[in-house]
This record gives sequence, structure tokens and C-alpha cells, in this order.
Amino acid sequence: MNDAKRYKEKNRKLAEWKRKLSLILEYSGKISTSSGLSDILKVITNETRDVILADRCTVFLLDKSKNELYSWIAHGLGRKKIRFPASTGLAGAAVTTGKIINVKDAYSDRRFNPEIDQKTGYYTKSILCVPMRNQPGQIIGVFQVLNKKDGFFTKQDEEMLRLLSSQASGIIENAMLYEEMKKSFKSFINTLAETVDARDPLTAGHSSRVCAYSLLIADRMGYSDKDRERLQYAALLHDLGKIGVKEAVLTKPGRLDLDESAHIQTHTSVTRKILERTYFQHGFRNIPIIASSHHENVDGTGYPQKLKGEEIPEISRIMAVADVFDALTYKRHYRNPMPMEKVLSILREETGRKFDPGCIDAFFSLDLCDVLRVMTEAEENGEKDSIGSGMSEFRGISLKDLHERLKKKEKDEAVKKFSKFYPVAGLKKRS
Amino acid sequence: MNDAKRYKEKNRKLAEWKRKLSLILEYSGKISTSSGLSDILKVITNETRDVILADRCTVFLLDKSKNELYSWIAHGLGRKKIRFPASTGLAGAAVTTGKIINVKDAYSDRRFNPEIDQKTGYYTKSILCVPMRNQPGQIIGVFQVLNKKDGFFTKQDEEMLRLLSSQASGIIENAMLYEEMKKSFKSFINTLAETVDARDPLTAGHSSRVCAYSLLIADRMGYSDKDRERLQYAALLHDLGKIGVKEAVLTKPGRLDLDESAHIQTHTSVTRKILERTYFQHGFRNIPIIASSHHENVDGTGYPQKLKGEEIPEISRIMAVADVFDALTYKRHYRNPMPMEKVLSILREETGRKFDPGCIDAFFSLDLCDVLRVMTEAEENGEKDSIGSGMSEFRGISLKDLHERLKKKEKDEAVKKFSKFYPVAGLKKRS
Repeated sequence: MNDAKRYKEKNRKLAEWKRKLSLILEYSGKISTSSGLSDILKVITNETRDVILADRCTVFLLDKSKNELYSWIAHGLGRKKIRFPASTGLAGAAVTTGKIINVKDAYSDRRFNPEIDQKTGYYTKSILCVPMRNQPGQIIGVFQVLNKKDGFFTKQDEEMLRLLSSQASGIIENAMLYEEMKKSFKSFINTLAETVDARDPLTAGHSSRVCAYSLLIADRMGYSDKDRERLQYAALLHDLGKIGVKEAVLTKPGRLDLDESAHIQTHTSVTRKILERTYFQHGFRNIPIIASSHHENVDGTGYPQKLKGEEIPEISRIMAVADVFDALTYKRHYRNPMPMEKVLSILREETGRKFDPGCIDAFFSLDLCDVLRVMTEAEENGEKDSIGSGMSEFRGISLKDLHERLKKKEKDEAVKKFSKFYPVAGLKKRS
Repeated sequence: MNDAKRYKEKNRKLAEWKRKLSLILEYSGKISTSSGLSDILKVITNETRDVILADRCTVFLLDKSKNELYSWIAHGLGRKKIRFPASTGLAGAAVTTGKIINVKDAYSDRRFNPEIDQKTGYYTKSILCVPMRNQPGQIIGVFQVLNKKDGFFTKQDEEMLRLLSSQASGIIENAMLYEEMKKSFKSFINTLAETVDARDPLTAGHSSRVCAYSLLIADRMGYSDKDRERLQYAALLHDLGKIGVKEAVLTKPGRLDLDESAHIQTHTSVTRKILERTYFQHGFRNIPIIASSHHENVDGTGYPQKLKGEEIPEISRIMAVADVFDALTYKRHYRNPMPMEKVLSILREETGRKFDPGCIDAFFSLDLCDVLRVMTEAEENGEKDSIGSGMSEFRGISLKDLHERLKKKEKDEAVKKFSKFYPVAGLKKRS
């Protein structure tokens, strides 16, 4: 029976191997997703925690340019981004030394940084940190697991976590590259929109405010992340065609004549032409038509295509409201910013003719605090903070509420306070 | 010994399992890279071929918008992109049915498409196609292996290929998304450059030609893929600051006065300012300075910063040559395209003062055929094809050769022929 014994023992070891490898295989199937970085990390941390039998898992990413580690941690019901120097804490020690760090009692190790515990109200006991390396072997982050169920992290856990992190590193690195590229693309579009807007000093910041108002409306209408992203591109690019409008017309003091109006109206079709020559990814192919339809009216009297009602993309109908609201609340060459009561009354009056009733309802349900924040954040006059901090008083008051009160000429506290904010300091200065 | 026998048998099976799982684990480590899509596919196909013991492996990707499969296949010493309808061939059958297709003799299966064999001179015998699925289970391509060494593909091969494809699908899908985003970003920058150039009809197409000439020079100087990419962004964006130049100055017929020259020179610092407000990815952070230094001279007499010699980024020194070459060979408001002999003489004369000698040498080593192709492809006058096809005669003649012959007033065949191409038809029309 000596043979049988030996075989049995080998059997046990092989079975253990098989179990581990199957676990890793299953793990790597589950994490092979192409969603956004934050979602990928969520899946990876949950799966890792379960495989290692830890209580928590965090994947920290290394930002080489700043030599900082960052991640998203559970915070209340949501998730919050944290950042710290890559030289601090046990995770930092794993990055700096390139070695696995396995500590039974975190608080008795002087390298441990208790700050995150303090922020999250968690209590770390055992902790295992493994440097995550990419294919050429560079450290790109740290896998950290906390509080092993029933005891401490073993040598086997160390090896397992190393294997899991190497399975995950390719996915994570690709997702990071993708996010970086997206960030760069968006930033470029944003800067470009600012540049085009700034050809007329009075429209400086217009596109980014239209984008911000439109996002607020879209959130009320329950937009998905994908649709929000589409909206952002379209809103930032909606006036791109103004590249083709003559400065003399753009900055003419006073009203435009018919020819000049016709010239300025060409900006929508120019926006469309420029964007139609651009390759957009799957899911973003309709950006040219969305971006260029913000001057269409639901009754078919708009331009450039005289589209009607639902022929107009919904995002364009949202942008139409945001666009007019921003134009009326800012100075133009032929008029000062309009009183808010008049602005809101015009939006109501034009509903069904110019504007989509659903988009207008969503707009009027916006919180005054959020709207003022967009309006004033666009100002670069150094008063941002003081204005920002004063605005929380408007939380809970909708644009609809404000409109009612302004119409009734009620001089309650909120209305009085509001008149200090609107037209905002920067607007007053410009007029 | 009954027990020992049973254990031995189980042992064998477990060992086989362990071998397979280890193989997959090793595979998935090797393919976890963040290089470009084409490189990732190369690694994946080589690794897959070796694990399956096949003679060849191809990964076809599904282009849903066109319902086509595409890939890169070995072709001569390089690789060539192929594309075909997703309904054809055995790979197409795997996509259409979602099932594994295992055929012992390809030519006796009527679904087999022998076209690729015909193109590559390969002879397919056994073939195994497995649909590749992403995490939500959608088909995103096909793993195909050809000609199993020693026989046919087994059930075990089918299962193994399915596992390998599911390990690879996340990496591949992420790389595809990344490439798509990059394509979109580049395309947007390209369209934008065209739009800015077109504010002056005489500079239409300038930035993309400068980009193309610069790439030709960079290739002579042995640039890496990463540096080529940096160069592309910088070259396409170099005149972005012209957004801020007045139309009256941009399109003034005749020479500019001093004030107007100073105004037009601001475009370099505007380019820099715009790009400095843009977030660039790691590795692209110096684009603002590269793009805005194309009017610096190596002797320090240029603008905006009066940089000298190697203080000027090398890419900017390359762009300076391409920029001037393009300007001189096209009509401007104050002159016609210059005779080529004069253009090349100016470039030589200004070497060491305006231009970097190394960049000029690389430029003069360019093939006349490549240069003419860039010059004429920018034309949209329908004569592109006829011009393009006539140009191969210039293959093997460098700009240096051309310059010598033009200086000697030799009227050999090439020089005579050249005078038919330069100034190109579109240039003549414009003048």
C-alpha cells in the first residue's frame, strides 16, 4: 500500500493545484470586461476579495507623473477617489520596494498609514500588499487585501494574490490607457470650444455652460452614462461651426441685418459638415446631426433643416433650452442680460413652438443652486468661492419655484438674496 | 493494488488538467500586454498556434457596422490587412451560427473560401474556427487555427481554443476600443486642421501635407512608432493658433505690413496656449511646445521664443523644413508657386541658419515619387489617380538628384517629365 499512499498524497496536491488554477481561470474570465476603469476595478476587487477570503480588497493605481497612488474606495453609498504619495503606507512600501508586504497587525507596523481607516471608519487588522506589474515587469499599482477571514494571510495567499494581480494587470493597464485617451480627447474638445467661443468675448465660456446645463437636464430625464457622454460631445461641439463665421459679424455691436443673420446661421451646417468629416466611434456616429440641430424648433420653424418634434434628436432639444437660457442670461452686443423673470417667462411662452415640453419641464425642475453654480463657475473673476459658498441657501428651490416667486413680486429672503447673485458680478461688469 | 491503480489513473487525469490549466495561465500572462491592437494580435496568434500545435493561427475581428471580418495576415516580410463579409468562409460560418467549426479537409467543405489561400500561397488542410465572445457573451470575432501538426483538431483542441479565446477576448476588445478612440481623436484633429487651414483657401490642406512630409523625413531619421505618433499630433496642430488670426490678414492680397506680420506671427503662441490648456496623455505632454516651435530657427532668430539649435525640439526642426517646403511650392497671396530649383536652393541656403542640417539631409534624401504623391494627393481635382499612376517613374530619384539635375539645366527624361507634374494642376489653376 506504499504506492497507493504516495499516489494518494500526490493526488491531494494535484487536486489542490487544479482547484487553484480553476479559480484563477474563472477569475480571469470574469474580469475580462471592457467597461470603464472604475467599473473594472469594482469587479476585480470584489472577485479578488472572494478568492483570497479577505474582508476587503483595494487596487491602487500608480500615477507615475506625480508618484502618487490612487483608487476609489467605498464611501457612504457611493465611491470616492483617494490619492496619496506613493511613498506612504504599506501599499506605498510595496511600490517602493517592489516586494510583497504581509503584516498580521497593521497598527503595530510603523509604515502603516491609518488615514484611510480614519476616513472610512474601517478597522484594519491583517493586511497583504502585492505590487502589480505589467507585461514588461514595471510596477503599475498595488493589490491590497485587508482582514483575512479566520486569521492571517498565508504564503499561499501571497502567491495567489500575485497570480491574480498579474491576470488583472493587462486589463487594468488597457483601461487606464483608454481613460487617459478619453480624458485627452474631451479636454481637447473643451479647449477648442473655449477657443471658438472666445472669438467673441461676450460668448466666452458659452459652450461649456450649455454642456453643464444640458447635463443637469439630462440627469432629470434619467440619462444613461453613454447618453450623457454623447451629450457632452455634442454640447461642447455645437458652436464649432462658428470657426467659419466672420469676426465682423460675430462681434458686431448692435443688431444684425438679414444678411448678417443668414451668415451667422450657417454655423449650424458648418458644425455638421466639420463633424461629418470626422470618424466617430460606434455609438457616437450621430454626433454631427445632434450637435448641429440645436437651433431647430419643435414646430418646424428652426434651422438648418426645419425638423419637427421628435425628428429633432432629444439631446438637441435639451441643448436648445440650455443654449437659449445661457444666451438670455448673458450680455449680447445688442442687449444686457435679461431679468430672470423675463428669461423664464420666454422659455415658458416658447414651449411647444420652440422648445420641447418635456425638456422644459425637466429644466424648470432644476435646483436653483445647481443652475447658479454653472452660471457663476464660468466666471473667472476670483469671486467664485465666495459666490459658491453662498449658494447652498438656494438648495431645494427649483427654477419653477423661483419663477412663481418672481412673478408674484414676492420679496422673500430667497428672492432678495437671488438679486445679489443675478446677473452675476462678471455679467454686470461686462454690461 | 486496486486502490493504487485507481489513484494512478486519477493522478494521470489530474496531471493532464494541471498541465492544461498551467498552459492557459502562462498564455494569459504572455498576452496581457498594452501594446497596439496589431501587436497584441501578433502575440496572441503566435501563442495560440503554439499551444494548439497548429501550423497557423489567425484572429478575425468582427466589424459590426459593416458585418465584415478583418485581420492582418503574413504577407511577404510584412503584414497585410484583409477584410471579407462576415457571412463567407468557415470563419464566417462560426460567426453566423455561433458554433465551433472543425473541418478535417477544408477543400472538401463547400463553405470554405479558398481566396485567402490563393492570396498567400498557403494550402489549408484541417481548420478549426471558434467564435470569440466578450464578457456579456456577444460574438466579437473568430479564432481560427489551420493545419494541426500530426493529424486533425480534436475535441480537446476545440475546448482549449475556446478557453484561450475567452482569455484573450477582454484584452482584444479593450485594444479595439482604444484604437477606435484613437482613430476618432486623430480624425477630429485632422478635420479641425483642415477647417482652420481652409479659412484661407490658399492654405487648404497645408497641415496635412506638412504632416505627411514630416513623417517621410522622420522615417528617414529612424523614428519609432511612438515618436511618429507625437509628430502626427504636433504637425496637424501646428497652425491651430490661426483660429485667432483675423481673416483680413490671413487672406490679404499682397505682402503684409509689419503690424500684420506681427499679428500673423502670434499664431504660434496661440497654438501653444490652446494646447497647454489641453490634457495630454503621458508621452504626449510636450505636444504644445513641439507644435508651437515650427517657426524657430536653429540660429536663434525665429519665433516665438528665439530658441537655438537643440533647444528646439527635433520634431519642430523637421516640421520647419516641411512647413517652408509646402509654403514655397504652393501659391501665396503675394506670389505664385516657386520654381522647384529655387525652392530646393533656398532650403540648402538656409541650412544652419534656419534649418537643422540633419533634417535637411534627411529631407533631400526623400524619394521624389513620395514627395510628389503628398503634393498631388492633397489636390481634390479628380486627377489624383492619373497623376498617382504616372509618378512611379520617379522612384529612385531623390530630391538631391532632382536638385542637381535642375541646377545643371539637364533636360533628361525625368526632368522633362517632372515639369509636367510641378507645379501640379491644382496649383496652376489656383495661380
